[in-house]
Amino acid sequence: MTGSVIAFSGSVIAFSGSVIDRADAVRADPERLAALTTWRARLLRLDGLAPLVAPDGGLEWGSLADADPAAELVFLGLDPDGRACFVAVDPKLVGVGSVAPPDPRLWQVMGLLSPADLAVYGAAKALVDWHARHRFCARCGHTTDLRKGGWQRSCTNPVCKAEHFPRTDPVTIMTVEHEGRLLLGRQPRFPPRRYSALAGFVEPGETVEEAVAREISEEAGLVVRDVRYVASQPWPFPSSLMIACHAVADSAELTIDRTELDDARWFTRDDVIAAMAGHEDATFIAPPPFAIAHHLLVWWLKQ
Amino acid sequence: MTGSVIAFSGSVIAFSGSVIDRADAVRADPERLAALTTWRARLLRLDGLAPLVAPDGGLEWGSLADADPAAELVFLGLDPDGRACFVAVDPKLVGVGSVAPPDPRLWQVMGLLSPADLAVYGAAKALVDWHARHRFCARCGHTTDLRKGGWQRSCTNPVCKAEHFPRTDPVTIMTVEHEGRLLLGRQPRFPPRRYSALAGFVEPGETVEEAVAREISEEAGLVVRDVRYVASQPWPFPSSLMIACHAVADSAELTIDRTELDDARWFTRDDVIAAMAGHEDATFIAPPPFAIAHHLLVWWLKQ
Repeated sequence: MTGSVIAFSGSVIAFSGSVIDRADAVRADPERLAALTTWRARLLRLDGLAPLVAPDGGLEWGSLADADPAAELVFLGLDPDGRACFVAVDPKLVGVGSVAPPDPRLWQVMGLLSPADLAVYGAAKALVDWHARHRFCARCGHTTDLRKGGWQRSCTNPVCKAEHFPRTDPVTIMTVEHEGRLLLGRQPRFPPRRYSALAGFVEPGETVEEAVAREISEEAGLVVRDVRYVASQPWPFPSSLMIACHAVADSAELTIDRTELDDARWFTRDDVIAAMAGHEDATFIAPPPFAIAHHLLVWWLKQ
Repeated sequence: MTGSVIAFSGSVIAFSGSVIDRADAVRADPERLAALTTWRARLLRLDGLAPLVAPDGGLEWGSLADADPAAELVFLGLDPDGRACFVAVDPKLVGVGSVAPPDPRLWQVMGLLSPADLAVYGAAKALVDWHARHRFCARCGHTTDLRKGGWQRSCTNPVCKAEHFPRTDPVTIMTVEHEGRLLLGRQPRFPPRRYSALAGFVEPGETVEEAVAREISEEAGLVVRDVRYVASQPWPFPSSLMIACHAVADSAELTIDRTELDDARWFTRDDVIAAMAGHEDATFIAPPPFAIAHHLLVWWLKQ
């Protein structure tokens, strides 16, 4: 599977590496945007919020004629040939969107796509999902309309006019080390035997490092030090920025929050090597190559 | 000024280091929360969205009796003595909040506070501001009400029931180096001669590192490499997570986006040392100690 090879190389993080130029100057220029909204433009085709794979193995693109005439259009940017790329907000998704963990079949479809295509899909999915779930002004309750090529919505109430922007939620995800062993946990929704890095949202009023320490304290009862940033990943389910870190614990004694986790335990380096290699007799099943947790384990094995 | 000393030490970042335990298990437990909502609880007093400084130089605290009876209460957590700490959403702020850059006088008041108090204030300010500006469900337009001690709002429409959470926007802020010189820019709203690090929001579908490269390309026309994470800071104006990075450029030739920046230029190490020391003949005025840009410059001088 392409994804495994990529993640194991440690060089490319899934959902990053888009080759589309976001061309932000175009968004704010209605004339330039209108001039690009022609039959030459490309439309990213989606099946609801899932990607469609073309016969050549890439994302499926059409023209603007393929969009529902009632759909709002989001300008994704310019492809390497200078063509404008759009995605449509399917009217069937409006007021619905998606917030639950994605359908497991989605992972199979995504496994067919190149990293660059996954990145294009991820940005488009996050934006369409945001438009679907943000129809009204949070400040005054009036309807909003799409502005700046889909990178803003504005309140239509003339005494409010609040501007709203696509939301991206910073999330910390972390491995914890103690005397050469690594702490991993499993959430109730995970497939059997899957263990992965602990994670949690960064809250108002805390640094990334403080959020990491708080999450580990809450979920595993550990005090950590030396929190270190490793990498980041856009994660469009629905709209997170995953900030991957590594921390060190001085104790191995766990107090697991069973409302958040099914289990958490310490794994040896050999355990992690066997799981990452997909051995049948591995003590656990590693996180999938799309997940930055996979990349964190690769990073740790290289240390 | 306390802030200068702290920032120069490089060890404490303003708005971080709160000693309040967020006690997230309490938020989700209405009985525990009710048992803490008593005359013993502490209420953080604000002047609108600005902090109030008590005679002892700390934040001004009162009791719940000081809150407007119509105000929603947000549970900040437990202080080191185990007392519940709250902040009220002043009804005068509802539907208003604050999104503009803060009043310059606010910086003077904040300069009187310790780092730990600034962190408590920052979390409270971000939360109150969010409640003030998020009265309605973005999905269906109905009213929302406060839940989980103020860490959630829920739609009151029985067929929607969407859950909304305090928003934190990840922002990259970066210094760029080329042959020993550092790129800094000035925004139109800056005081005269102030230069600081470039910055911009992380967008859906990009990593922190990609956002850094894009911002520098858009605002200064530079291609960068070796983007490196340095530190992070919660920034409650209105609700950002600042992610500070450093990058390297292979060229010094700038193409400045004059719609975003008044100016951008390269500074020598001696320029930065003079500015950070506040010399009258320095070539520029450094960012204030509260800002993580200040910390980035300290970090760079130490390299």
